[in-house]
Amino acid sequence: MSTLTVPAQVPSAAEDCEQLRKAFSELTNDFERAVKLWTLDPAERDAFLANEATKKWTSSNQVLVEIACARSPQELLLARQAYHARFKKSLEEDVAHHTTGDFRKLLVPLVSSYRYDGDEVNMTLAKTEAKILHENILKKAYSHEDLIRILATRSKAQINATLNRYKNEFGQDINKDLKADPKDEFLAILRATVKCLTCPEKYFGKVLRLAINKRGTDEEGLTRVVVTRAEVDMQVIKEVFYKRNTVPLDHAIAKDTRGDYEKMLLALTGHRDA
Amino acid sequence: MSTLTVPAQVPSAAEDCEQLRKAFSELTNDFERAVKLWTLDPAERDAFLANEATKKWTSSNQVLVEIACARSPQELLLARQAYHARFKKSLEEDVAHHTTGDFRKLLVPLVSSYRYDGDEVNMTLAKTEAKILHENILKKAYSHEDLIRILATRSKAQINATLNRYKNEFGQDINKDLKADPKDEFLAILRATVKCLTCPEKYFGKVLRLAINKRGTDEEGLTRVVVTRAEVDMQVIKEVFYKRNTVPLDHAIAKDTRGDYEKMLLALTGHRDA
Repeated sequence: MSTLTVPAQVPSAAEDCEQLRKAFSELTNDFERAVKLWTLDPAERDAFLANEATKKWTSSNQVLVEIACARSPQELLLARQAYHARFKKSLEEDVAHHTTGDFRKLLVPLVSSYRYDGDEVNMTLAKTEAKILHENILKKAYSHEDLIRILATRSKAQINATLNRYKNEFGQDINKDLKADPKDEFLAILRATVKCLTCPEKYFGKVLRLAINKRGTDEEGLTRVVVTRAEVDMQVIKEVFYKRNTVPLDHAIAKDTRGDYEKMLLALTGHRDA
Repeated sequence: MSTLTVPAQVPSAAEDCEQLRKAFSELTNDFERAVKLWTLDPAERDAFLANEATKKWTSSNQVLVEIACARSPQELLLARQAYHARFKKSLEEDVAHHTTGDFRKLLVPLVSSYRYDGDEVNMTLAKTEAKILHENILKKAYSHEDLIRILATRSKAQINATLNRYKNEFGQDINKDLKADPKDEFLAILRATVKCLTCPEKYFGKVLRLAINKRGTDEEGLTRVVVTRAEVDMQVIKEVFYKRNTVPLDHAIAKDTRGDYEKMLLALTGHRDA
């Protein structure tokens, strides 16, 4: 699903150097950030993004959910190891220290999780836990320990089975039920958790849509999603994006960005002329 | 600190086989369990013990605390990986599922932790967090989220600094203050947590003392400590044991056990004639 393409004529190392030198002398902030993030390996990049998120954490910040839930369990573990090496602390220690209340109750177990990664599913458990989720949502007990336990410890395959059961039994998507108050930021982060666990492409497609449609463009979100998903599932994200917005992602990016920053994002999303 | 010794004349493989065959035909339950645990590698053994502990979990069960806190962060991680491979589930998932209330609030973050393993210590933080611990203990808020957060996420070096500060500032060991009600099992598990994090040899010395002094001997505890610490810190545990009980550990073991089980425990504790 990688979207990077290699030019027909591969440039020499000397040409690469010269192009890089030129590019660096004209780095803008957005381009600089994109280059910096792109040069890190995925685990180091996640450690960097997670640390940044804990330091300037706000309740609308969903980066930690992305790192905890949209990566594989093994990738999250590598990010935690990279966090130790770079910051001489643990990720969960910083998350716990910088968050409070319901957000802490959810985020600390999410970033500490090391989920089982297999496909095995227990249908009896799915039934029981769909009921537990529904009962708590009915009572608006959104931060109930059992609700958080299920989302933070079960394997993605098991959670998917539980949420399918939820839909069959209770008539609609759990995320519809988690939209009782669209302005509630804890509910928003719960919905992000569910989406990152079960349909990350849709989640990232939406983050891109919101980042681009925002007045002034949210370059931070745009860069983050493009850089972190380029070598993962960008092809699917592009399809989801087009289906939802009737505009190809590269057109939308080209319209809202410019210069080297634009070129880099287009290259990472697999735009042919980049 | 290993306590295993190699015989002066190493037996041939054939002699070993014959001895093993004989031994297996006379396995007693205790000996069988000791052999079984000893044949597993440390991570698999911890996964096995942890699974056993979740399945028959009682509030007096401290095995999960030992695995979460007396191992290195890397060893705990390996145990969690072994748990996936063996049980097709995650350790934290089973712990969360089988525990309730304050015990769940403490045990899930403990077994999910991946602490920073370095020696760096932040003295300002030690001062702040010693105060947080003391305030919560004064209020008998033993399961307060900040108290658990500190014990479950900080590095062992940092926790040690915090508890030293606690002692200097508030006049006595935190574990004295955590003994307000000696019969409270949650307090007992908090004390075990503190000891496993800061002085595991003392903790295991005490488990051995209680296992041996119990009417009828607690073979499960005795076997577990001997097998899991044989290649780690048994030498220090023996010194601690002797200092506290004025009886050498091997004498105490020989007095309370017999047959192959006795011989195996003595061999693992480094008894010369074993």
